[in-house]
Amino acid sequence: MKLPVAFRAAGIAVGIKSQEALDLGLITAEVPLYWALTSTRNQVVAPCVSRNRARYSSGRTVHGVIVNSGNANCANGDQGIWDNEDFAGMAASALGLPQVQNMLTASTGIIGHRLPVARIRSGLSDLAEQLGDDSEDFAKAILTTDTCRKQVAVTLRSGARILGIAKGSGMIHPNMATMLAFVMTDASISQTALRELWPSLVERSFNQITVDGDTSPNDMALLLSSHQHNSDPGEFAEALDAVCRQLAEKIAGDGEGATKLLVVEVKGGRSGEGARAAARQVARSLLVKTAMHGNDPNWGRILTALGSSGAILDQSKVTIRLQDVLVYQGAPKEFEATELAAALDRDRVTIAIDLAAGEYTGSAWGCDLTADYVRINADYHT
Amino acid sequence: MKLPVAFRAAGIAVGIKSQEALDLGLITAEVPLYWALTSTRNQVVAPCVSRNRARYSSGRTVHGVIVNSGNANCANGDQGIWDNEDFAGMAASALGLPQVQNMLTASTGIIGHRLPVARIRSGLSDLAEQLGDDSEDFAKAILTTDTCRKQVAVTLRSGARILGIAKGSGMIHPNMATMLAFVMTDASISQTALRELWPSLVERSFNQITVDGDTSPNDMALLLSSHQHNSDPGEFAEALDAVCRQLAEKIAGDGEGATKLLVVEVKGGRSGEGARAAARQVARSLLVKTAMHGNDPNWGRILTALGSSGAILDQSKVTIRLQDVLVYQGAPKEFEATELAAALDRDRVTIAIDLAAGEYTGSAWGCDLTADYVRINADYHT
Repeated sequence: MKLPVAFRAAGIAVGIKSQEALDLGLITAEVPLYWALTSTRNQVVAPCVSRNRARYSSGRTVHGVIVNSGNANCANGDQGIWDNEDFAGMAASALGLPQVQNMLTASTGIIGHRLPVARIRSGLSDLAEQLGDDSEDFAKAILTTDTCRKQVAVTLRSGARILGIAKGSGMIHPNMATMLAFVMTDASISQTALRELWPSLVERSFNQITVDGDTSPNDMALLLSSHQHNSDPGEFAEALDAVCRQLAEKIAGDGEGATKLLVVEVKGGRSGEGARAAARQVARSLLVKTAMHGNDPNWGRILTALGSSGAILDQSKVTIRLQDVLVYQGAPKEFEATELAAALDRDRVTIAIDLAAGEYTGSAWGCDLTADYVRINADYHT
Repeated sequence: MKLPVAFRAAGIAVGIKSQEALDLGLITAEVPLYWALTSTRNQVVAPCVSRNRARYSSGRTVHGVIVNSGNANCANGDQGIWDNEDFAGMAASALGLPQVQNMLTASTGIIGHRLPVARIRSGLSDLAEQLGDDSEDFAKAILTTDTCRKQVAVTLRSGARILGIAKGSGMIHPNMATMLAFVMTDASISQTALRELWPSLVERSFNQITVDGDTSPNDMALLLSSHQHNSDPGEFAEALDAVCRQLAEKIAGDGEGATKLLVVEVKGGRSGEGARAAARQVARSLLVKTAMHGNDPNWGRILTALGSSGAILDQSKVTIRLQDVLVYQGAPKEFEATELAAALDRDRVTIAIDLAAGEYTGSAWGCDLTADYVRINADYHT
């Protein structure tokens, strides 16, 4: 896809992955970029996350982000910290940037193996040469076990654009862990406003993908703005929210071994966090995931997941709908089982819940659990 | 196994399950029983749990518990409440008990189907006739997808005995949900002391089986005492703890589709709850479970699970041992991969962790995740 104004991106293969796949990507711009960052809640953090956080608190603009896939550079002790500094330095230098601080880093892949810095160094001038206004190679270079690129773009009335690119996280963090999202825009919104907005949008989108509470040490969602087009802040916020939610859906639907996307829509929550927690708990329940794989309208498993989510609910009034068919309303409801099983045999299944306890809503995205998932993750070897 | 003094038990088949398996069990005694109860934290609760809780707060003794498998009598609206009262009443009447309140109930099985009270009624006189001092039929009658009976017995110096009997919860709550444990003793410990002791022991044992946060609406751990032998309270508490932990281990090892038991031992926690949370998070991580299934010493997945557990840890000092082999100590450690893979190819795998943040310990029990688990749970139909 075409990048927003003033952005440049590229992706090449330098042999970090054993396959001949693209594994080194770069986003940069002709102007200093405003940015907002949300990163993992895991207490174990990779050096790229620690470093970006340190940059973040300075409040300064950046000139881009260098990303590799195939190696997370995580849990490598002090060596990993030095290698990550080196990674940023090489990229800044290849772009002729005076300050290494202006270059952010992101890594995804295997944990506990040293980052192959020599290989990366040898590819950097090639990467810089390939910079262009198209996102495809970058979107490919950040993938690990993903089966496809994940990109969403929207255009605002002002002509400003938002382009989001994401990878992973497999089903429940994958072999190679990590959810990465890079959202670029040329809408002119102040950095302060971007930083206020971003965490709440990430909370409702990327943090609602079923990840089993197991965040990766490398998770990162980065918003970059080249501030070229004056735009309505309300319209911008809504469009950015839509981009994040669509990317979240794409990530969940491409879960390892998955055959279908599960969309869980909760209403009637006593609080927003309660509604989101209820949605997450349903989307991540192994029993719900296996039932949906088997096209089984097993609402008992859904009700049980809701009850263990911590969300306040009224057990005598809760309703559950599968593909718009009411299956539970404080007590079991009659439904045509064969028809419903057929309706569940789709690549997108919607589970709609009313907690009957308030006015708040929340969504979560997940996928079914298949024997293929087990094979992918049990056969993989470190 | 032989029951503690003054207890009687039986188990019969009345056709609640489709197979000709035992599905109705009874424990009673010649004397009023002291008791302690811990039940599910799920907000959705089955009528048997609500009723037992109400009995519990009265502080009165009981005469026993009637248990069925194959039907959870859960989420059946008001009908379920009436049927559960009926269930207790029938049992009390078959035993000639004057007060229905003296009979506790427990149900496990499918959710949202009416309890077949007529079948149960027709079997009750037979059940009462079969009461004896042996536990085998009762232990069988409470099973659902379990592949074997789960019983543990110890004898104290005083001659007093403790006999624990449990069922399920499959891997991460099973098709038919529910972990049930019934622990009988003839040690003479006051009901007040039993009730003080029980929750902390359950916390460290049954609540540390990997259940993915997804408690079932019917979970229950019941301690019954016929108070016949004066015993040392300290010795009793230790023995009871051991019984609970061994039962927890048996439940985890019999997880649906599992080929091996995972024992996670955490030390160095800043708090007991932190150490237990860290152990649980490792035991429940799908990636750890699949790695252990594949005999893969993938410590990165273990470290990641620890980091997302909420437990305080010192990332630069954490150690991880698999089957006693040190694989991580603040940074990757060299190990003989082929030898370790062979050591992981056992029916019991120990993951030992030092969080390096304090003095507290915690254990959790889980099992590997297999393609069979998916098949069992996806092919099952409501």
